[in-house]
Order: sequence, then structure tokens, then C-alpha cells
Amino acid sequence: MQRILNNPDNIVDEMLKGFLKAHEDIVEAAKNPRVVRAKHIPEGKVGVVTGGGSGHKPAFIGYVGENLCDAAAVGEICSSPTAAAFLDACRAADQGKGVACLYGNYSGDNMNVKMAVKMAKKEGITVKTVVANDDVASAPKDEREKRRGVAGEVLMWKVGGAKAAKGGDLDEVIAAAQKAIDNTRSVGIGLTPCTLPAVGHPNFEIKDGTMEVGIGHHGEPGIEVCPLETADKMAKRMVDVVLPDYPFTEGDEVVVLVSGLGATPVMELYVLYDEIDRLLKEKGILIHRAYVGNYFTSLEMMGATLTVMKLDEELKELIDMPAYSMGLKQK
Amino acid sequence: MQRILNNPDNIVDEMLKGFLKAHEDIVEAAKNPRVVRAKHIPEGKVGVVTGGGSGHKPAFIGYVGENLCDAAAVGEICSSPTAAAFLDACRAADQGKGVACLYGNYSGDNMNVKMAVKMAKKEGITVKTVVANDDVASAPKDEREKRRGVAGEVLMWKVGGAKAAKGGDLDEVIAAAQKAIDNTRSVGIGLTPCTLPAVGHPNFEIKDGTMEVGIGHHGEPGIEVCPLETADKMAKRMVDVVLPDYPFTEGDEVVVLVSGLGATPVMELYVLYDEIDRLLKEKGILIHRAYVGNYFTSLEMMGATLTVMKLDEELKELIDMPAYSMGLKQK
Repeated sequence: MQRILNNPDNIVDEMLKGFLKAHEDIVEAAKNPRVVRAKHIPEGKVGVVTGGGSGHKPAFIGYVGENLCDAAAVGEICSSPTAAAFLDACRAADQGKGVACLYGNYSGDNMNVKMAVKMAKKEGITVKTVVANDDVASAPKDEREKRRGVAGEVLMWKVGGAKAAKGGDLDEVIAAAQKAIDNTRSVGIGLTPCTLPAVGHPNFEIKDGTMEVGIGHHGEPGIEVCPLETADKMAKRMVDVVLPDYPFTEGDEVVVLVSGLGATPVMELYVLYDEIDRLLKEKGILIHRAYVGNYFTSLEMMGATLTVMKLDEELKELIDMPAYSMGLKQK
Repeated sequence: MQRILNNPDNIVDEMLKGFLKAHEDIVEAAKNPRVVRAKHIPEGKVGVVTGGGSGHKPAFIGYVGENLCDAAAVGEICSSPTAAAFLDACRAADQGKGVACLYGNYSGDNMNVKMAVKMAKKEGITVKTVVANDDVASAPKDEREKRRGVAGEVLMWKVGGAKAAKGGDLDEVIAAAQKAIDNTRSVGIGLTPCTLPAVGHPNFEIKDGTMEVGIGHHGEPGIEVCPLETADKMAKRMVDVVLPDYPFTEGDEVVVLVSGLGATPVMELYVLYDEIDRLLKEKGILIHRAYVGNYFTSLEMMGATLTVMKLDEELKELIDMPAYSMGLKQK
């Protein structure tokens, strides 16, 4: 395992220390050492909170910042933050207007957020939630509530954070974030597994010369293991999974997000995007904005995810709003 | 080779097509398909140009943008752009005030830039150059002219681009960029090799359980191969190579840039930065600004580089100026 580590058991705490020092213009420590909060939170707005396991950088703390999330709860690698961390993130973000907790559909996160919401209620903090479930490959369309959240969460945070920054009340922020994720579909293709530092060997297998379509951010099984394909064929396969599910059709305006899973060279993401862009345009779909880069990773996995969100006027305005965090800077 | 590719011979062209589409708010195609130019170049300023081989994203085209470079010449993977591409980048950036060509010290780039400068002169375009040589490990201190340019180039572009944006004339831009790189030292530690797509196997070896201190961005040999160390020991080793070379001492104000080499999880860069920050502060060195992330990579190499630049008032002002490109967004 060729990694930059001290004691693997301390990696999250050490990472957080370095992160807070490096980005002290954007974030600061909260009372709970497993909570990161934005340095400048405009007064009187609805709080926006997220959280999740570590190892997915920029997710989750990289989306704490201006017009994005106000605080994030931090879990161990690939594990949910505790209920206490989610609660403290809500406390850090609450200004009496309530808190929108926007997170991904994983059993640990669901359980801990649910507890945090109850505890917050006792303190008089109203927390409402949106649970991201954009990963098409993780369950059939008629069981969307079972689907996992993946890179589409970035667009949900972008929209929810912008709505709160614009002065939306809690229900309006929740409605915008819910619409964002309802309008969003993703799929991933994994090319190599990743190794959790404390384990020291890959926790799943992708054989050389093969690829796993629909793989999850923690190596959750996909829908098909097949021989490694060219970038153009991968693009077509991803588009063919994502587009029919919503469905996205001619004349739709969309945001496209292509994220690397960690170790894939960024130049290859542009090769993939080039063909995705061509395929979407061929179908008459209008790309309003594209994000290409490492937006939601899984340690040193190779591979990529494609995320498409259908826009309406409200979503377009919110997506286009400036933002400033470690992981997303846009003017 | 688990990569996202079509024909490896076309990867640079395909990447460029995707890059231009994804970032059409920042960059646009030039006449020469191997040149990327900024979309919005303020009128009447000195041109700032760079260029280099592909596979180092965000370098080089990711630093074309507002208050950074105006154009970049694009080479094949790990190969210099042609003289014609450097010339066309200069043409794209020239507004009659001359062009500062800020690039890294590699034989191919030196040769092609030299030819481009001559050809530009015949057309009445004055091109002056700064050659980055921040890699401490690549030659002894008394042979600095032999040292390679690595991630310190990012700070050179930041400073040169800002000086030109502020209305500096060609000599002032060159002087600022030269001071930036003269005040900058870097070192890298490599943990795994990388594979050029057209070759299909690693072009050098780093054995599991070892690391190569001082490795170059193309796998050029470092100064020592030793057993893999903890993050804290790597940090100390890097600091101990970089600080004495300038030397950086108590009371100095510096910029610190920690860049991943491509496949190292970003969380590990923060673990490394945490200790680097501690070591510098222990020595009484003041960190004015830190950049941590994948700023200058080598395909899917694992490892990281440390870059330290000493600031004076001019450099501080230029480093702090806003910038907006694919690879560097700062407000």
C-alpha cells in the first residue's frame, strides 16, 4: 500500500487538522472536532448541512463554503458520521430559521441523521432532510427510495446552498434541493478497487481488463462486469443508463457532471466528456453547464461517474449562482 | 492498464476537445489546434504564455484564464509542444506589448521556445522568457540552471499573470516571474510510477514498500530510494530538502503548495500538509497562503510535491490577486 499515512486510525483527525489550516479563509473548526463549519455564514439564513464518511474528497467538507453548505459532519473512512456529529453540524448552522440536512442514501447516514433530527427538535432546532438517491444502477426505477446517493449530491448542495443564500425559507430550501435530486441521475464505472488504509488491501476486486458498470462509491456491486471498453463506448454506456431513467429528452436543458473516482488521470475525464457532450447534443439535449474533474471520489479508485440534472428556470438560476469552497469555486 | 482511452495516439486531441467544451466560459480554441487561449484577455496588456507536455493536469492549460496565462502550447504526453505551437501561443497572446513565456526547464521545451522566440521576433513580436527551475533534487545548488521546473511553475504563472493583469510592462512581468521562481524551491516524493497510454506499462519502477525522494514529473531519478515512511517523516524529509536550499528562515513569509502527483487520495495531502505546516511554524516561518490539492500531476503517479516560495510585498500582492482558471480559482 503506497500511501501517505501515519497511524491509519488517526487519518481522519490528521486530515481535518490539515484541511482546516489550509483553508482557514473558507472553513473553521466547530466545537465538535468531527464538524467543519463555514467561516462566513451570512446572518439570518436557513442552515444547510451535510455529512458523510471520509475518503470521498472534495466530498463532504470540500462543499462547506459560500453559497453551499454551512457545516458538514465527518465520519471515519467510508463510514457515517455519528448522530452527535450530525447534531453538532445542525447546531453550528442553525440561526433560528431551521436547517436543511442534505445527505446521501446510506443506512448509517439515514439512522444517524434521523437521531440527530430528533435530538435537534428537543432543542428547538427544526431540521428537515433531503436524501440523495441519484445512482441509477443501485436499484430499479420503481424503487428509487432504495437508490444510493453519489456525485449528484454535489448538485443538490449547490442548489440547496444557493436557495438558502438567496433567503429562501426552510421549506423552500428543502423543495429546491429535493427538486435538484429528483431531476438528477448518475452512474459510475469502476476500473480499479480502492484500499482502506486501516485494512491495507483492496476491499473488493476489479480484474485487469474488466470494468464494473454501476459500481458504488464504496465498491458496492454494479449491474454488470464486462471487458474494459474504449472511452467512447464507456460514454455511450453511461449515457444509455442515465438518460432513459429520468428520462432526459430532446430540448431539455441540463447540467452535466463528470467526476473521476480518484486515481484516473484528469485528462481522461475530458476524453470521456468529449464523447458524452457529443452524444447529448446528438439527442438534442442542451448542456447549460458542465463540471469535469474530481468532485466526488473514492480514495484511489480508478473510474468515473456521469451525472445529469434537468434544469428549470429556478434550478438554472441556483446552479449559476457564485460559490466558493475548497471543492467548488464558481463565479 | 485500467484507463479511459480510445486510440492512445489521439488522446491529446480528444482531451483538448473535451476541455474546450467543458470550460468554454474560460478558454477557447486558437487557430493552432495545439494552442489553448483565454476567452477574455483584457486589452492592451502584456501577453503571458506557457506550454508543456500533456498528462500533468491542471498544468498547463488549466492555468490559462483570468489573471493567469493568456495562452498555452500543448505537447504530446510528457513531450514538449512544438516550436510552432509555442509561436502560435505567443501570437494568440500578443497585443503589441510583448509576451512573457514562462515555462519549465526541460531540453525539448528549451529548444522549441528558443526557436519560437526567434520566429516571433521576425514577425515583430517580442518574447522574453523565464525558465522555472524549482526542483531542488534535480541538480546541486550551484548548478541551478540545470534544475527542472515542477509545481513551482504554478506560483510563477500566478505571479507573472497577476503582474501583467496589473498593467506591468514586459520587463516588469519578466522580473516578477523571475523573482517568483528564484524565491521558490520544490521537492517531490514518488510512491508509484505512471503508465503512458501509448506504452501500456510503467516507464520506470518504484518497488512496493519503497519511495523515491526527489523524483521528477516524468519519473526522472531522484536523490534517494528508501523504505516507505510515515507521512510525518515524509513531511520532515521534504522540508529538510527544501528549506536549507533557499534558505528559508525564521520570520520569512511564504506560500506553501502541496500537490498530489495524480493518484494519491487528496485526504492524504492534508495529512502531509498538517505536518509540513507544523514544521514550518516550529521554525518561525509564517505561512501566508497554502495551496493543497492536485495542482501539477503526472498521470496516475502516487506521491506528492512540496513547494515553498518566499514572499516580499510585491509577490504577496500578486499571489493574493484573484484568479480564475480550470486549475486555480481564487478570489
